[in-house]
Amino acid sequence: MNGAQALIRTLVGAGVDVCFANPGTSEMHFVAALDDVPEMRGVLTLFEGVATGAADGYARMAGKPAATLLHLGPGLANGLANLHNARRGRAPVVNVVGDHARSHKRLDAPLESDLDALAGAVSGWLRRSLSPADVAADAADAVAESARRGIATLVLPADVSWEDGAEPAPPQPGRPAPQVAPSVVDDVAAVLRSGEPTVLFLGGDVVGSEAALLAAGQVAAGTGARLMAETFSARAVRGAGLPELTKLPYPPEMAIAALVGTRHLVLAGATSPVHFFGYPDVPGTPVPEDCTVHVLAAPGEDGVAAVRALAQVAAPDARAELLEASRPELPTGELTPRAMSAVVGALLPERAVVVDEVLTSGVGLAELTSGAPRHDWLSLTGGAIGDGLPMAVGAAVACPDRPVLALQADGSAMYTIQALWTMAREQLDVTVVVCDNGSYAILENELSRVGAAEDGKRAGELLHLGGPSLDFVALATGMGVPATRATTAEELAEQLRAALAAPGPHLVDAVLPGRR
Amino acid sequence: MNGAQALIRTLVGAGVDVCFANPGTSEMHFVAALDDVPEMRGVLTLFEGVATGAADGYARMAGKPAATLLHLGPGLANGLANLHNARRGRAPVVNVVGDHARSHKRLDAPLESDLDALAGAVSGWLRRSLSPADVAADAADAVAESARRGIATLVLPADVSWEDGAEPAPPQPGRPAPQVAPSVVDDVAAVLRSGEPTVLFLGGDVVGSEAALLAAGQVAAGTGARLMAETFSARAVRGAGLPELTKLPYPPEMAIAALVGTRHLVLAGATSPVHFFGYPDVPGTPVPEDCTVHVLAAPGEDGVAAVRALAQVAAPDARAELLEASRPELPTGELTPRAMSAVVGALLPERAVVVDEVLTSGVGLAELTSGAPRHDWLSLTGGAIGDGLPMAVGAAVACPDRPVLALQADGSAMYTIQALWTMAREQLDVTVVVCDNGSYAILENELSRVGAAEDGKRAGELLHLGGPSLDFVALATGMGVPATRATTAEELAEQLRAALAAPGPHLVDAVLPGRR
Repeated sequence: MNGAQALIRTLVGAGVDVCFANPGTSEMHFVAALDDVPEMRGVLTLFEGVATGAADGYARMAGKPAATLLHLGPGLANGLANLHNARRGRAPVVNVVGDHARSHKRLDAPLESDLDALAGAVSGWLRRSLSPADVAADAADAVAESARRGIATLVLPADVSWEDGAEPAPPQPGRPAPQVAPSVVDDVAAVLRSGEPTVLFLGGDVVGSEAALLAAGQVAAGTGARLMAETFSARAVRGAGLPELTKLPYPPEMAIAALVGTRHLVLAGATSPVHFFGYPDVPGTPVPEDCTVHVLAAPGEDGVAAVRALAQVAAPDARAELLEASRPELPTGELTPRAMSAVVGALLPERAVVVDEVLTSGVGLAELTSGAPRHDWLSLTGGAIGDGLPMAVGAAVACPDRPVLALQADGSAMYTIQALWTMAREQLDVTVVVCDNGSYAILENELSRVGAAEDGKRAGELLHLGGPSLDFVALATGMGVPATRATTAEELAEQLRAALAAPGPHLVDAVLPGRR
Repeated sequence: MNGAQALIRTLVGAGVDVCFANPGTSEMHFVAALDDVPEMRGVLTLFEGVATGAADGYARMAGKPAATLLHLGPGLANGLANLHNARRGRAPVVNVVGDHARSHKRLDAPLESDLDALAGAVSGWLRRSLSPADVAADAADAVAESARRGIATLVLPADVSWEDGAEPAPPQPGRPAPQVAPSVVDDVAAVLRSGEPTVLFLGGDVVGSEAALLAAGQVAAGTGARLMAETFSARAVRGAGLPELTKLPYPPEMAIAALVGTRHLVLAGATSPVHFFGYPDVPGTPVPEDCTVHVLAAPGEDGVAAVRALAQVAAPDARAELLEASRPELPTGELTPRAMSAVVGALLPERAVVVDEVLTSGVGLAELTSGAPRHDWLSLTGGAIGDGLPMAVGAAVACPDRPVLALQADGSAMYTIQALWTMAREQLDVTVVVCDNGSYAILENELSRVGAAEDGKRAGELLHLGGPSLDFVALATGMGVPATRATTAEELAEQLRAALAAPGPHLVDAVLPGRR
């Protein structure tokens, strides 16, 4: 068989059976080989940022990588921003990037670029397959390494793909996450027993595990430590029956206030927090100067086991305080961001996957959904906007039996709006709520911080999405997604309820005050 | 003044007075500074690929760079594909890429990435400004170097932008393109006098100059050499009154046939041709093995002067054969690709700028427009699809008094469809014709080449844009661009005529056979 066939069979054998694809000429043998390996599901996207963002969302929910199929350096480049988000969230992805045939590589053809530099900037593992005999083993390595290193990129020259002489390779055995030593657990337990103000700061695998969250709640109940979560998690499990878990706020002043007086910060699956950006005369991190940072489990270690062990050592008899089931009442009247959050809290279906790229419009959202039925929450981990709609595609492919709710800021939605078409084509059960405030509101806030917003008309125009206003209903229907527009809280509730009840994708354009 | 203000004043002083912008938090002081420097026109785009593609189109038509404003590594990443196209077309661009404040850089905040590797992969010049005192001189260098090196990227830390102590710097003197030595011209003239079959292969600045084309026609008339142009030029001037200039065809077999028997290939502004991709059992270049390649003027040298000098030496008394004014008749009936080309040829306005990302739908397009009134033709130089609509934005900003006609394949249009919004916001005089065949037709051709198209249903689905069909009328109106749909040749003619006559942007969805 040829290299492409062996590659796809190897991926499938290793459990990678979804490929988000934007193929070009150099990937045609890979595309042709899809007909020989029906176990591989090819999902077409209209832009590479959709493919990589979908792979990010898929990995977060499936717990294993999808493949992407990208077209040389420029195709990879289009997917880099969402690979950045996946890398920041430690989501495994296996990129297959087609390249020129080996004999063509030195000719500097128009699509030639420094592909290796582009791939290297975002990949934890990178290899170029140099012969059909190697490509299957290379693919097996890519899958295995993605579990530990996140983004694994395999560069596939066209002739390695089309030449015969390849055979599938067996999957590589997975390497379990490193365990935290009992002495580390004991040390942290001693800190917790000190009675000094302590925050147990959770992230990564810990916030994605009900067992770990219950154990963390037990620690908090038994020791008086406060629980706090990193601001943006790849996947957090939430809802009634779990301990209350406040996120570290995004704005620097609020983050600093949230940690004031903390003497010990214990990291479990999270890194020590830093502000998203530096600002004049603001320290780079919210951690107080006299606070000692302790690492219970670093990202990549088995944080779930570490927190459970900590609960046994530090608070064996304590019982976690758990959130009771509660929902806000459906609001009426003006459709404010908070009313939108209340509608979401009131209607969030059981086992929903919430994809959160809501940014400034998420007023009260965490609080108003905290008592909802159990759900997963996917955040923007790397700050590269435009991951929301693609992640919703990937989450829906990974979890066809679960409703996906994408809460999406308008400016960010436009980065990868093409994702709507893939939702329609694959008939994914995704409900998109566009928080349509007609501006890059987060940037308007930042502009006012730098003291330029008052009379700065030209500057302000660079942050405003009006003139013309975007019509998200037209955009969605233009890509085959049924869409409606809500201008009151009642309309949003009615339309969201209907969208969640019907199978397939829907979009609700929630027109917020900035827009009207 | 602060670094951002000095930077913008320096750019304006050096003639860079347009900035295609996708700012984020780290660029807020740059945005704020726009209010202090009204000479700088900020043009907001909704995606970085639109900003960089607009800068590409602007440079091709203005003959000088625009600036882009991009947000850290991920923002730059989103713009890389069209920077690749600009690099391949030798279009100058000055990227200003905001980065974290110097003190924040080492904290590995979520948006931290290997920005320098990303920038280095596409830039001919790259510098990181390290203090407010340096930033203006750095900007002046960037503008000067962009003339010679194409993409100049200035990385601007947020605190270098916001700190005081900066002053504008004077523009650097431009460096003229190197002149070709008279001995080189004499050597080429001797080749042309040999009487052996010779092709004068034109590209780069030569095809953008009426004087150079007339001189090349004189050479052809006087020596019997054939004229041929590179397949994809950054900017070619065309139309009645110029010599006929055939492009080297894209498909390898046709390119090989076009050069069969050629003993001498004389390069003027072009590089020696290679196929876009390698294929099994096809040589990488169409140049016959026994053909000698001579360089009259390499890209970056003054090819216009070299060709004019060659005409004086090799054919001083010859007169070029020139195309007479002619237009095809308006076609009737079925809207085939050829009918579309005839409509364009019949209606192309004087001094139009044609942006060509038509790909497979451009059947007969070159022939049917060759006798039209004088116009400029911008092609996809780097093969990274999604440059067409952004280039049209940039060309229209550069040439507000000229009509811009964007002939745009449907699949490629979706890569940077957000460009339509900027056309509407800036009320640019752009007419977009979408060649709506409902597929990645160029890839269907390639798939059939690899012998998989006959019964390969799953493979074929990855190249088909149906299920659901894209509704470009809805997409355009959703972004504020008036749009109509044409399903016959008569409708296309009527709608194109109306769109060209009215100011501001318009889109015509030309529904071609594959789609119906």
